[in-house]
Amino acid sequence: MIFAKTPEPPYWAVIFTNQHSDDTAGYAAMAQTMEDLVAKQPGFLGAESVRTDDGSGITVSYWQNEADVLAWKAVAAHLIAQRLGKERWYKGYVTRVAQVTRDYAHGVALESE
Amino acid sequence: MIFAKTPEPPYWAVIFTNQHSDDTAGYAAMAQTMEDLVAKQPGFLGAESVRTDDGSGITVSYWQNEADVLAWKAVAAHLIAQRLGKERWYKGYVTRVAQVTRDYAHGVALESE
Repeated sequence: MIFAKTPEPPYWAVIFTNQHSDDTAGYAAMAQTMEDLVAKQPGFLGAESVRTDDGSGITVSYWQNEADVLAWKAVAAHLIAQRLGKERWYKGYVTRVAQVTRDYAHGVALESE
Repeated sequence: MIFAKTPEPPYWAVIFTNQHSDDTAGYAAMAQTMEDLVAKQPGFLGAESVRTDDGSGITVSYWQNEADVLAWKAVAAHLIAQRLGKERWYKGYVTRVAQVTRDYAHGVALESE
């Protein structure tokens, strides 16, 4: 696990829980492109991601403000990725937008500690 | 992925991102005990969890109210689990408490839809 070095709360989290479909053609390249692109977005604080061999995945990205979350959602290249994700790569997913109010860490150095 | 059938926002999320240590003796039994126990907690709405073979894990649990989150944190058997987790099973972890304000689903039936 590569932990995100988030700042003192409050900040925002986008919790993306998903199940891949059987059609993963093009997914890896798009995921890498999105990873590179999101890192340049204003307010992006980091992300944590886990996927199992059976295609269950959870990715949580962290953001300074809610406006930063909305701006990333509307980036043109990301809109294409979202569309392909919906039509092709994911059998199902839920995206939840949340405001982090408290955090606790052990054995991980956050910026808040 | 077993998706949590969460209600219409707002509700709360506890994002637990973690890395196992090499000492996992007793972990599986405790995890099952906690899973059974949390299901009976007032305000518990469900959970989503992914772990890879290399010991990276993300578990997100969902709760109706912030008070429900705090009550679960203080349950005696859960305090023991937290202590053993810190001392033994986890090399590192971050727990983040957040209020979910919006959600979007595709191919998953939430209670809110």
